Order: sequence, then structure tokens, then C-alpha cells
Amino acid sequence: MTYNFSDKVLALKPNAIREILKSASDPGVISLSAGNPAPDAFPVDAIKEISKNLLENNPIGVLQYGISDGYTPLRDTLKTYLKEELDIIKEDDELIIVSGAQQVMDIAAKTFLNEHDTLICEAPSFVGALNTFRSYNVDLVGVTVEKDGMDMQELEEKLKAYPNTKLIYTIPNFQNPSGVTMSLQKRHKLYELAKKYGVLIIEDNPYGDLRYNGENVPCIKSFDDSGIVIYSGSFSKVVAPGIRVGFMVANKEAMAKMIVCKQGQDVHTTMWSQLVCNEFMTKYDYKGHLEKLRALYKEKAELCMNLLDEYVVPTGITYNKIEGGLFIWCTLPKGVDMLAFCKALTEKKVCVVPGNAFLTDSAIPCDSFRINFSTPTDDELKKGIKIIGEVAKDFIK
Amino acid sequence: MTYNFSDKVLALKPNAIREILKSASDPGVISLSAGNPAPDAFPVDAIKEISKNLLENNPIGVLQYGISDGYTPLRDTLKTYLKEELDIIKEDDELIIVSGAQQVMDIAAKTFLNEHDTLICEAPSFVGALNTFRSYNVDLVGVTVEKDGMDMQELEEKLKAYPNTKLIYTIPNFQNPSGVTMSLQKRHKLYELAKKYGVLIIEDNPYGDLRYNGENVPCIKSFDDSGIVIYSGSFSKVVAPGIRVGFMVANKEAMAKMIVCKQGQDVHTTMWSQLVCNEFMTKYDYKGHLEKLRALYKEKAELCMNLLDEYVVPTGITYNKIEGGLFIWCTLPKGVDMLAFCKALTEKKVCVVPGNAFLTDSAIPCDSFRINFSTPTDDELKKGIKIIGEVAKDFIK
Repeated sequence: MTYNFSDKVLALKPNAIREILKSASDPGVISLSAGNPAPDAFPVDAIKEISKNLLENNPIGVLQYGISDGYTPLRDTLKTYLKEELDIIKEDDELIIVSGAQQVMDIAAKTFLNEHDTLICEAPSFVGALNTFRSYNVDLVGVTVEKDGMDMQELEEKLKAYPNTKLIYTIPNFQNPSGVTMSLQKRHKLYELAKKYGVLIIEDNPYGDLRYNGENVPCIKSFDDSGIVIYSGSFSKVVAPGIRVGFMVANKEAMAKMIVCKQGQDVHTTMWSQLVCNEFMTKYDYKGHLEKLRALYKEKAELCMNLLDEYVVPTGITYNKIEGGLFIWCTLPKGVDMLAFCKALTEKKVCVVPGNAFLTDSAIPCDSFRINFSTPTDDELKKGIKIIGEVAKDFIK
Repeated sequence: MTYNFSDKVLALKPNAIREILKSASDPGVISLSAGNPAPDAFPVDAIKEISKNLLENNPIGVLQYGISDGYTPLRDTLKTYLKEELDIIKEDDELIIVSGAQQVMDIAAKTFLNEHDTLICEAPSFVGALNTFRSYNVDLVGVTVEKDGMDMQELEEKLKAYPNTKLIYTIPNFQNPSGVTMSLQKRHKLYELAKKYGVLIIEDNPYGDLRYNGENVPCIKSFDDSGIVIYSGSFSKVVAPGIRVGFMVANKEAMAKMIVCKQGQDVHTTMWSQLVCNEFMTKYDYKGHLEKLRALYKEKAELCMNLLDEYVVPTGITYNKIEGGLFIWCTLPKGVDMLAFCKALTEKKVCVVPGNAFLTDSAIPCDSFRINFSTPTDDELKKGIKIIGEVAKDFIK
């Protein structure tokens, strides 16, 4: 059989990072390429206890079909939490539960984009989301990420140049992979531009609760008075990714269509996972847990930056200081072959992600690579970053 | 904001059944409209024990990211099981885990159908799957279901009339909603026709393990030597639906694209659910559990058919005798207004699903309605079916 694939998926290739992760799982390899939370970050004891009680007292609730919008008590808990913490649930908004935030990207793309419509994203951006958008055969256009977020002048130029733009995808907090946080001024500007050009925004905020330095910046959704922002949140980085629970907030009219798409994909999100999240948020010290996570990641981030300052920066590599999240973006001096450099690291058994994986087209030249500090142990970080420094010394002459 | 929805989802409406279920959940209403497994069918004690052990011994395996193809031990368990039981894993086939069988329909439609390609299904067919196909803006063409499955002459006529047909969707065992099982002869004929016209088949088999009378009929996938059959299986009816675990078997080349689509939708299926299924299949008496389920449903199905024979058939309503599955398809005498009849039932607090919900276009005239016997208690069944008989006596003159 010769398969005739749909136009949508014809050019689709496996996610480069998840492929790298497969090779990074060899024993003896120090992987700075993952995006996994630290195993110490999981509230194992609480989940153990919650799960036991749920299956004891409400097994049918855990095992029977649920509704596509999500488990109502969890939706209510999240609405209250988001209103208090981020001021983002307005009168006309609805919140539903999804099977991880990845599903928000899929559903939003499906609901609002025809093939060859344009979606504007940050350059670089999260490759998982980009691949989801690609799977609907939409045209991706990147806008340069500066130290304080997207270049707004370039954004407006692209909005003019691509009049069939329907969505802008942004990760405003501790962006994956750049680590950059968008300034409040730019958030307002982005919102204005989207409104002016009649474009929707997906505000993807998986790392928002992981700020360990500096001041919180209001969400774009918090000043959305026109229902143009689709907000995406996730339990993957603050509870656990294996449970696959995220949520989205959007205007009710837009949400009605998106719920039908969600229903068509998986009927509803796993009940056990939803009930675990609700119990954890309501009967345990959820805010205390977030404090612990921030302390854990602050320590690891600072260790990582100190190691970079000591071993890597002297070689000519630069990086963006971060205030939260899980990733650091390192840039080689001009003229150094980034892919060859990453390959040389792999030969020394250190895995990082080549920066071109995060661009709208991986053939675009790129001098940067991403490192993650949440998955490796402190010892692995120390060894790995020393090796990056040693390879860089040889490589950068 | 006026939303510009994509062409794909523009005409999309909520799943009629899931909307009916919402109203059927009023207290005092006897719902024969659901498709939920009986609460007694869930292996609660086993899941309780498995979950406790998993979170005790392998919490990180439950909570950390997994791979998109699914949990490898569960994939291996299923491969062995399906090879032994159904003879369906060939050299060139691959098996992956999905978040319920609904995801198979979504991924297959996305991978193989452009907008306005044709998909042929049984008429009537499972509305959840039809809605998923609709969400990709494909044209649905129905083929009449006879007592032994699709009308093969009509199928060939439709294949000729719609040369852009890419997929045939079938539920060969105890079809939802008709309860019909396709004969072996027709399975072979369907396979030949698909091959002749270069069309793929989705064989959806959620009820296959629930045969309580008669002899098993081989799966279409078991004689697929050309990689044209995508087989879909599910734990929803044999373990529990709330855990959202299904699986699909397809040729490796086709599967490679579908895995990328799966990755884009939800990264991977909830780990807890996958690990629970694997433990239950390997460390418990899985076949004994299936025996118990069959005994449970056999009793309920026979009770239901006996009640129909006693109270409903004498009024002129006919129904298809079933050998497995969860649904019975009842047909009113010609000339009776089926929708008005279902409404009259609702007024007497009995909910069934109007048959037109299962057609490619709900405006097509339909004399039938679906009843489910797995969700109601025996008492509810008795009361509900008596009421159907009483209303029918008044209605059919």
C-alpha cells in the first residue's frame, strides 16, 4: 500500500527534541536537553494519599465517563485560583480542563486556522507547540525575541506583511527556549497590535508559577476586554507531567467550538488526574508546595548560571540570565558552527538542544543552543557544564 | 470580537448524545440513553491495589513524562494478547497507546483526509466518531446496515459514486447503535472492496470482548496483508472509561505519521492509566475478569430483551436481537413520528436516543431509537421498558 497522506500531515516530521531525548537516554550520557521537572519536585506523598482516598471513597467517580468540559469541582477551584492570583476570569470567559497544555495548541489551531493561514510565534519558540501548528499545515512566521520579549516593530511589520495572520502564539514568562520574560509594556503593545489587526493571541503560561527572582508581570489575559486572548495553563511543571492535565480560559463563544473539538479528540481528560489535582489544590498546602518548587529551582538555576559564568562565559559563549522557568539559552560567538559544536558535545556524552530546532524553519542559521537544569542532578550539571566549557575552548579559537 | 472559525469547525455542533445525557442526569429520570459501562463492571479492588503499589514502588514512572508511542511494557503486553486472541499483529504492524479509542478516529482522520474528502460509514453509526470526522470537514456517506452488516452492493455503489473516498469506518462487532455483527463473508467482501478502490478501513472494536452468545467472527485486520486496516481497541468497556486508554494497530509507515499527530495532541497518554492497565493485564486474572463482564452483560441484555418482548414488541415496535455489546436498536412501525415518540418518553421521564442522531445527516428520516441496558439498574430497566410499552400503546394506533 502506498499511503496518500493528507496535505496537513504530508511534511510532518517527528519532534526533533523528543528524538534527541531518545538518544539522550543512553546510560552515561549527561542530558541537559530534556524539559522534565526534577523528580524531587513531585508531591509524591500527597498524591499517594489522595489516590488511596479517592479509590476508597469515590471509585466510580474515578473510573466512569466524565464530561468533556472537565471535572466541575476542579474547574471551580481553578476559576477561583486564577481570579485571585492572576485576575484573569472575566464574565464572558469559560475555563475547561484539557489533557495537558499541548491540547490547547491543538484545539485552538484547529478551531481558528485554515491550511496556509499564518500563525506568528516567537523566534525561537517551543518546538512542541510549533509541531502541533505544523500538523494543521499553517504557515509559521517568527518574530525575534529580544531581552524583554518579541520585537514589537517586527511584529507589526509581519502583521502587515501577512494579512492572513489569525493567531499570535507567545510564552510571556521564562519563555521556552530563550528564558526571556516579556515586559509589561510589550504585553500591552502586543495586545493592542492583536486587537488592531483582528488577530487572536494564545498566551501559553506553563512556567508562570516558577518565578524565583524579580517581580511578577501581569498576564496579557488580565487586560483582555475583547475576548481575543486564549490563556493556557498546565499542571505539568507544578504537579507532574505524567498525569496530563492542563486548562484553558477563553471567551465562552470561542470555547463552545473548542469543547466540541476536545470532545472529538479524547472525550474528556483522565478522571483520576483531574480529581488528584482538585484534591491537591483544595486539601493540601498548594501555595506552600509552589514555594518549595521555587526554592528548588532557584537553587538549581543559580548553580547552573554560576557554573556557566565560571566555565563557559570565559570561552566567548553568552547566555540570558533568567528569573524563572527551566531553561537557559546560550549563544556561541559569530562564525562558530553551532550544529558541529552540539555534535562535539554529544561525542563527549553531553546532550543539549541545537537552537535551530526552535525556529519556524530549522534551516534558518542559528548560533544558540538550549540547556535545561531541572532534570540533571547537581553533579551531572557540574560535569556537563565543565565539559561544555572544555569543548568550547577547543572549538572557539 | 466576532470570531472567524476555521472551515473545519464552522458547522460543528455539540454531540447530540452527550447533550441528551446532560438532561438525562436529572434525578427521577430513567436514562436508557447512556453508553456507560455498568458500575459493577469496574475492577475496583484490583485498581485500588495496583494504584497503591505503583505509587509506592514506581512513583516517578507514574508522574514523569512518557513517550508518545505509549508505555512500552503495555504495548508489548497488548501485542502478545492481540496476536494470541485475534491474530492481528503482522510483521509490518505497529501498536501504540492512545487516550481512548476516540483519539484513533481523530488521528486517522487528520492523517488521511483532506477537507471534503469522503468517508464512508455505516448508517447508523457511532455519533462520537462521526462528530470527530465532521471536525475535519470531511463528507460523510452512509451505507445501510443490514442484519449481517453493511449492504455490500450499496457500499460498492457509493465507492464508485464518491471517487474521493479515503476511509471506510466500521464497527463490525455489536455495532453502536444497531447491535449488528458483520458476517465473516461481508468482512471479506468489505476488505476486497477497500483494496480494489484503494481505500483504508478503520475497524473500531470497543465491544469485541463482550460477546455473550454465538461464535467469535475473525477481525478484518486478521486478514489484512496490505496494511489497509487501522484497528482500534479500547479499555473503556472492559476496564473503565474514566482512565482514557485505547490502542491502535496499523502499518508502521502509516503509524509513523499518526504518532506525530498523537504527540501534537497530548504528548502521551496519562501514565497512571497505562501502568494500571498493564498491571491488570499481566498480574491479575484478566481473562477471568472478561468472563465476569460477559456474564454480567448477558444477564442484563437478556433481561432487557425479555422485557422488550413482553411489553414493547406487542405494540408493533421491532428490535434487533444482539449477541454482545451494550445497545439495542428499536424500530417503530412506518408512519409513527419517532422524534415525537422520544419526546413523549421524556415527558414520562424515560430517556432514549433518537436514531437520527446516528445518521450522517440528522435530517434524514429515521424510525428507530437506541436503548442501552448497561447503565440502568435492573429495576430501572423494568420500569423504563414498561413505560416505553405504555407510551407505544397510546402512540401507535
